Amino acid sequence: DYFLALDEVTPAFGVSEGELQQVVQNGIMHFAPHIDVILRDGQLRVEQVRTSKRTPLVTALLHGPPGSGKTALAATIALSSGFPFIKLVSPENMVGMGEAQKIAYVNKVFNDSYKSPLSIIVIDAIEKLVEWVPIGPRFSNPVLQALSVLLGKRPPKDRRLLILATSSNAPMLQDMDLSQAFLANIRVPAITSLRSVDHVLRETALFAGENEHQRCLQLLHSAGLGENEIDGEGGAGAAPRLNIGIKKLLSEIEMARLDDDPADKLTAALNFM
Amino acid sequence: DYFLALDEVTPAFGVSEGELQQVVQNGIMHFAPHIDVILRDGQLRVEQVRTSKRTPLVTALLHGPPGSGKTALAATIALSSGFPFIKLVSPENMVGMGEAQKIAYVNKVFNDSYKSPLSIIVIDAIEKLVEWVPIGPRFSNPVLQALSVLLGKRPPKDRRLLILATSSNAPMLQDMDLSQAFLANIRVPAITSLRSVDHVLRETALFAGENEHQRCLQLLHSAGLGENEIDGEGGAGAAPRLNIGIKKLLSEIEMARLDDDPADKLTAALNFM
Amino acid sequence: DYFLALDEVTPAFGVSEGELQQVVQNGIMHFAPHIDVILRDGQLRVEQVRTSKRTPLVTALLHGPPGSGKTALAATIALSSGFPFIKLVSPENMVGMGEAQKIAYVNKVFNDSYKSPLSIIVIDAIEKLVEWVPIGPRFSNPVLQALSVLLGKRPPKDRRLLILATSSNAPMLQDMDLSQAFLANIRVPAITSLRSVDHVLRETALFAGENEHQRCLQLLHSAGLGENEIDGEGGAGAAPRLNIGIKKLLSEIEMARLDDDPADKLTAALNFM
Amino acid sequence: DYFLALDEVTPAFGVSEGELQQVVQNGIMHFAPHIDVILRDGQLRVEQVRTSKRTPLVTALLHGPPGSGKTALAATIALSSGFPFIKLVSPENMVGMGEAQKIAYVNKVFNDSYKSPLSIIVIDAIEKLVEWVPIGPRFSNPVLQALSVLLGKRPPKDRRLLILATSSNAPMLQDMDLSQAFLANIRVPAITSLRSVDHVLRETALFAGENEHQRCLQLLHSAGLGENEIDGEGGAGAAPRLNIGIKKLLSEIEMARLDDDPADKLTAALNFM
Amino acid sequence: DYFLALDEVTPAFGVSEGELQQVVQNGIMHFAPHIDVILRDGQLRVEQVRTSKRTPLVTALLHGPPGSGKTALAATIALSSGFPFIKLVSPENMVGMGEAQKIAYVNKVFNDSYKSPLSIIVIDAIEKLVEWVPIGPRFSNPVLQALSVLLGKRPPKDRRLLILATSSNAPMLQDMDLSQAFLANIRVPAITSLRSVDHVLRETALFAGENEHQRCLQLLHSAGLGENEIDGEGGAGAAPRLNIGIKKLLSEIEMARLDDDPADKLTAALNFM
Amino acid sequence: DYFLALDEVTPAFGVSEGELQQVVQNGIMHFAPHIDVILRDGQLRVEQVRTSKRTPLVTALLHGPPGSGKTALAATIALSSGFPFIKLVSPENMVGMGEAQKIAYVNKVFNDSYKSPLSIIVIDAIEKLVEWVPIGPRFSNPVLQALSVLLGKRPPKDRRLLILATSSNAPMLQDMDLSQAFLANIRVPAITSLRSVDHVLRETALFAGENEHQRCLQLLHSAGLGENEIDGEGGAGAAPRLNIGIKKLLSEIEMARLDDDPADKLTAALNFM
Ligand SMILES: Nc1ncnc2c1ncn2[C@@H]1O[C@H](COP(=O)(O)OP(=O)(O)OP(=O)(O)O)[C@@H](O)[C@H]1O
Ligand SMILES: Nc1ncnc2c1ncn2[C@@H]1O[C@H](COP(=O)(O)OP(=O)(O)OP(=O)(O)O)[C@@H](O)[C@H]1O
Ligand SMILES: Nc1ncnc2c1ncn2[C@@H]1O[C@H](COP(=O)(O)OP(=O)(O)OP(=O)(O)O)[C@@H](O)[C@H]1O
Ligand SMILES: Nc1ncnc2c1ncn2[C@@H]1O[C@H](COP(=O)(O)OP(=O)(O)OP(=O)(O)O)[C@@H](O)[C@H]1O
Ligand SMILES: Nc1ncnc2c1ncn2[C@@H]1O[C@H](COP(=O)(O)OP(=O)(O)OP(=O)(O)O)[C@@H](O)[C@H]1O
Ligand SMILES: Nc1ncnc2c1ncn2[C@@H]1O[C@H](COP(=O)(O)OP(=O)(O)OP(=O)(O)O)[C@@H](O)[C@H]1O
Ligand SMILES: [Mg+2]
Ligand SMILES: [Mg+2]
Ligand SMILES: [Mg+2]
Ligand SMILES: [Mg+2]
Ligand SMILES: [Mg+2]
Ligand SMILES: [Mg+2]
Repeated sequence: DYFLALDEVTPAFGVSEGELQQVVQNGIMHFAPHIDVILRDGQLRVEQVRTSKRTPLVTALLHGPPGSGKTALAATIALSSGFPFIKLVSPENMVGMGEAQKIAYVNKVFNDSYKSPLSIIVIDAIEKLVEWVPIGPRFSNPVLQALSVLLGKRPPKDRRLLILATSSNAPMLQDMDLSQAFLANIRVPAITSLRSVDHVLRETALFAGENEHQRCLQLLHSAGLGENEIDGEGGAGAAPRLNIGIKKLLSEIEMARLDDDPADKLTAALNFM
Repeated sequence: DYFLALDEVTPAFGVSEGELQQVVQNGIMHFAPHIDVILRDGQLRVEQVRTSKRTPLVTALLHGPPGSGKTALAATIALSSGFPFIKLVSPENMVGMGEAQKIAYVNKVFNDSYKSPLSIIVIDAIEKLVEWVPIGPRFSNPVLQALSVLLGKRPPKDRRLLILATSSNAPMLQDMDLSQAFLANIRVPAITSLRSVDHVLRETALFAGENEHQRCLQLLHSAGLGENEIDGEGGAGAAPRLNIGIKKLLSEIEMARLDDDPADKLTAALNFM
Repeated sequence: DYFLALDEVTPAFGVSEGELQQVVQNGIMHFAPHIDVILRDGQLRVEQVRTSKRTPLVTALLHGPPGSGKTALAATIALSSGFPFIKLVSPENMVGMGEAQKIAYVNKVFNDSYKSPLSIIVIDAIEKLVEWVPIGPRFSNPVLQALSVLLGKRPPKDRRLLILATSSNAPMLQDMDLSQAFLANIRVPAITSLRSVDHVLRETALFAGENEHQRCLQLLHSAGLGENEIDGEGGAGAAPRLNIGIKKLLSEIEMARLDDDPADKLTAALNFM
Repeated sequence: DYFLALDEVTPAFGVSEGELQQVVQNGIMHFAPHIDVILRDGQLRVEQVRTSKRTPLVTALLHGPPGSGKTALAATIALSSGFPFIKLVSPENMVGMGEAQKIAYVNKVFNDSYKSPLSIIVIDAIEKLVEWVPIGPRFSNPVLQALSVLLGKRPPKDRRLLILATSSNAPMLQDMDLSQAFLANIRVPAITSLRSVDHVLRETALFAGENEHQRCLQLLHSAGLGENEIDGEGGAGAAPRLNIGIKKLLSEIEMARLDDDPADKLTAALNFM
Repeated sequence: DYFLALDEVTPAFGVSEGELQQVVQNGIMHFAPHIDVILRDGQLRVEQVRTSKRTPLVTALLHGPPGSGKTALAATIALSSGFPFIKLVSPENMVGMGEAQKIAYVNKVFNDSYKSPLSIIVIDAIEKLVEWVPIGPRFSNPVLQALSVLLGKRPPKDRRLLILATSSNAPMLQDMDLSQAFLANIRVPAITSLRSVDHVLRETALFAGENEHQRCLQLLHSAGLGENEIDGEGGAGAAPRLNIGIKKLLSEIEMARLDDDPADKLTAALNFM
Repeated sequence: DYFLALDEVTPAFGVSEGELQQVVQNGIMHFAPHIDVILRDGQLRVEQVRTSKRTPLVTALLHGPPGSGKTALAATIALSSGFPFIKLVSPENMVGMGEAQKIAYVNKVFNDSYKSPLSIIVIDAIEKLVEWVPIGPRFSNPVLQALSVLLGKRPPKDRRLLILATSSNAPMLQDMDLSQAFLANIRVPAITSLRSVDHVLRETALFAGENEHQRCLQLLHSAGLGENEIDGEGGAGAAPRLNIGIKKLLSEIEMARLDDDPADKLTAALNFM
């Protein structure tokens, strides 16, 4: 299967390959079907840029709750493209920069990309790039405006560009009139089904034997955490009892590993979230 | 027909001809009668500037939803004028500039235009030029004020100037007292009728044969997307089901082209917008 | 008649005569009695400054809707004074200036005026000078404060100064406590009576013959645009159907001139405003 | 009578005597008893500073509507003190200064005053010094704070200081917690009684003969402008019909002087205020 | 009695002794029992710093209405401590400083204090230090934050510090989360009882003889100013008729001294406050 | 018992050991079981960082009312880790720094930590670091954003980092979307039970004999301060009568020590809080 193997592919000469590989340090676990759907959608956009003459610029937004895996998935899609220019624009590399410096930095990445016939720019955590805070609300309008313009700026002749952006705050983008700047919207849900937890528990080998594994699932069920069949779908109206990003789930598993009774510890952790 | 041929004309020595031609890279498709009306209205304003002594300054605003074709139409009108000075003022060329720099840039374009007897300045995407964001709302008042003054500033003796501006946010201009600065207002609607989609599908040759084309139109009809006869007219009160800018429509067509069943893919895309 | 001839007078050595004459490029048409009243009121203020020892500083505000002719009238009054120092302070000359620079510029004009025994300063478009925008609202308070102080600053001994200011936003001045800084308030209404349109049509010679002229007036009447007898007076409560500044009326006439049926075109233009 | 003669006295070596005399260019007319009360109150404060050891710093605020004569009265009190240091701090001398510069300027005046054993500082138009505008409202908080501190700062040993401040916006000072910084509050009312107008008309000799003068008073009475007996007192609840500062009254008189029928012109002017 | 004599004590080598003595220029009058209570409370905090090892940092706030004597009392407590380092931080010494400069100034005082084993810092008029104005409200957040941090910053090993702060706006400190930074809160009320006025009148010797003194008290009583027994206690719900800070009372007494009938003048002054 | 002894352990070569020890100058008293729970939770996080490869970054927030002991507990956990890099980031070391300087400072601490294989950074009093004030509210968004990014920034390969942050304002962090940045939340309650007061009184040896001690507890009980069994739990709905941070309790005890009747003094102090 081509798509399922995406995460094992690395491009021959990606520009910031190391950086991109680091953000998927824990790999991509195929704990649910939607993971493959997301990877496939991303791959389609890669192909659109590669082949269509009418659309030299394609923009896609991966959005979902904190820790749901947006950055890792965007990086994986980018790495698997084989494009000669791939660059991660992350707030982590901009700590201490002022507004003007940030804009100059982002602008330079775009100008660099125009030197390559096929490019991908991953713009990570837009809400942090624009320094969004819900109180006020406040944010850096100059950085927002620069992003907004760059997201619509067609590359020069014979240059093609795919922009993959991530954000944990889709409503904010809507309020800022930035959503409409994206051609595609890809949702990355949190984990709300026990089926996905089951998968992750096995991949991380929290339990030595199957018995312990089954006991843990039983405990989670008893705690009322098994009501959803598919990730991202809540109960009728109410928020689902189980609702955790893959990032935090991995951390809780590691925390549980230190305990005398990991099954119990994990159930407690997921229960009181 | 003179007006229908407008988009094929290019001036002999337009100043930023290349730049202007790029923004109409996909050409102007005459998918509906209003396209010709808009081009004719623009042409009339060109003539007013060329001939009337009492009105050496004429200003027109092209406004409509995102991607409805404003920039391409303004550029086409400008290119067809044959005026010796034509210049595009676009936020894409100002990324990273501060307020003062932007104002100086725009001001210089105006001063340059005064050196030519007949000039056109296309001011693109006013809402981005003034860094408008609906939250707050916030915007750059100095840039807004400079635009407001320049839009009313009569060129020196024996100089004539046509200003074509575009904006996807007409209510914002109203709220800012900027609408009244324009002598003419030209509306550029989104596509809401299947008739226009039909036209575009043919021009882009998405389907090899007529059968497939008809099947696609049938699918779109079944999906309830065929309720409007004319673009820009919605149902009684409710927003029309089909509502897409020509820019996004072209992108969806290119995306559908990659699919095994383009008709199905396109219907799905237009249906869940 | 002295006052009716005002607009033909030019001073012997006005400082910025050229600039002032340019803003009345289309001349002053005496399309209604209030035009003469305004010119006479202005003239009286000129005389007060010239003769009274108790009032070496006189300030008058011309206010009215956009394009009603404020700037042209203020310039005409100033030009007809014969004072040795006449200066136009216009936002058009300050594009790109920062707040401090604007204040310094205005302040210099005042200091220059103090060198002449009799001076007039025309401060045009106060709402733009202070960068007013209704959203917020926002404006430049330092510039506003400087104007406010200068409007009340008595010239040095044996120096006399008339300040003629214009604004299309009288309520704003009220809200800003700036109205009270003016000794006189002169209202410049928009055109709301067909009688004035009749006059302007004749002066601009839109129609070759009287028949066409009469047909046009008939058309305007049928469209319901003939309800007011005097400019500036609306219907009982409701805004008048006809409501247009002389500036825009002149432009619509020029536009109609390009049409096959100017009478019809003009009626349509005035009807859908 | 000592107090009535105050306005004729000038100190032997006042520091900014010229400047102070200029602001009372039209002299002080004793058109009503309250004028003498204000001058006497001011004089008492001068004596308090001169004699009491417990109160080396005295602060008084003259407040009243625009043009009621605050600046002229404060200057007159200061000039009559005979103190060796008298200085006018006026916004008119600070046009174009930034906040820091203004504060430095005011601070320097205070430090200079400390070099003299007896000093008076007139701080004119506090609302303009702090750049107050009711929209927002906005003002310069740093300048306000500097004034607030300086108004309470005791002069060094063996130095005494009287601060006379004026403002046309007493409620603003209250809202800013600045009123409480003054030991004394002196109200300067507008003219609301015909008796005062009568007095001023005689002093300015608007009419050549007594007949004309009486006719004018008669006209004003008929217009309903004679309802108040004392200045500053309105009707029961409603604002008085006659309500004008001495400054504007003097200007209207000068304007009327140019007219063929001054009595009629003046009545019209006072009637439609 | 030790505490009653506090105000006569001066330390052997206080750092800014002169400055501190100046703010109590009119001495401390023991016009009511609460004055002694305040001085004793202050003295207790001095002892706590001197003796307890667990509390090397003690912070107390003296708050009360304008002119109630806060600064004089804080200075008196500090002077009587005999500590080798005593410093007054007052807004009067910071006029013209910017935010950064103010913070540096205050910070330096704290660092200087750490060089002495026992120190007192009097931070006067916090509401002015932070440039508080109720409109907005506005204030200098950086200065506020610096104060907030310094108020909780423990001195280095073997160093002890007492911070005495004053403010006439206790609710503001509450709103700013700054109240909780103080270990002790000391209220300094205004004078609301005739008993205290009686005491002050005698100490200032307004009247030559006992008869006049009694007549004055009688007058004040008749005016309804004698309803309270103790300072700081108002009537049931309503604000007390008599309500004046010692600072303003002293000034009114000096003003009355200039009058022919001081008793009458004083009664009028206290009555119409 | 390992955990109970935590506070006696000091690391062999902690970087800012002195600074950290100073903030626990009064030691950790084990006055209630939750103190041990907090220390144990902290220790578990230390172990997670030391052992798990999947979680090289762990972040925990200690939050609770002012003076409840957050800083002392965080420092104690850090000191007991034995990690080679331990650093306290405190607002006390940043007085006078501007926003950019603060960000640079914090950023440098993080970069320094990356040089050590195992590191702990204690970020103290986040609400002061970001200069939070509830009026407005106002805060430094750039500092907040830098913290937000750094809290999620994974250390480089083979580096591990534990971040322990403290805040007395948990709702603020929630409002700022900063809570979600922490993997663990540890609550540090105030003292609301007499049992804890009992313990602290004994450790501080306020009373020489058991009789006096019992009398004090009796007094506190009679005052109605004995209603809670466990710290941090209030009555049904209402705030508990007894509610004091350990920091303030220690100060009140020291104050009471100076009194003739410490039991009475302490009861009064705790009663009128
Ligand atoms: N199927 C998966 N999809 C995404 N991430 C996965 C998956 N399986 C495992 N992971 C791991 O989970 C983590 C996801 O973290 P990531 O930073 O990508 O989340 P995020 O949504 O970007 O978080 P944030 O909202 O904080 O930006 C990574 O360590 C990744 O290796
Ligand atoms: N009839 C048409 N009118 C306008 N554009 C057309 C037409 N037919 C095809 N196009 C193509 O559609 C695209 C319109 O994009 P354009 O950028 O002009 O839209 P826009 O309204 O300015 O978008 P935005 O709101 O993002 O500024 C161009 O690529 C243009 O070549
Ligand atoms: N009677 C008239 N009064 C004023 N202007 C007239 C008159 N007759 C003709 N005009 C012409 O009309 C135009 C009036 O424009 P003007 O710029 O003075 O209007 P305005 O009210 O200042 O506009 P704006 O509100 O944009 O500042 C000028 O070109 C002037 O020559
Ligand atoms: N009795 C009077 N009191 C004050 N001014 C008088 C009096 N009689 C005549 N005048 C004249 O009236 C004018 C008063 O103007 P002034 O500038 O003092 O008023 P103002 O209240 O300070 O005005 P503004 O509110 O604009 O500051 C002066 O020219 C002064 O000479
Ligand atoms: N018992 C007293 N307490 C305080 N001040 C007294 C007392 N008796 C006399 N005074 C005198 O009263 C004055 C009090 O003024 P002080 O500046 O201390 O008041 P304040 O409350 O600090 O005023 P502000 O609110 O303006 O800061 C001083 O001059 C002081 O000498
Ligand atoms: N069990 C305990 N937990 C914490 N602190 C204790 C404990 N026992 C005694 N203490 C002492 O109590 C004081 C707690 O003060 P600390 O500054 O840590 O509180 P805080 O909650 O950080 O205060 P703030 O809200 O002001 O930051 C320290 O002096 C500490 O030595
Ligand atoms: Mg991410
Ligand atoms: Mg466009
Ligand atoms: Mg104008
Ligand atoms: Mg004045
Ligand atoms: Mg004080
Ligand atoms: Mg702390």
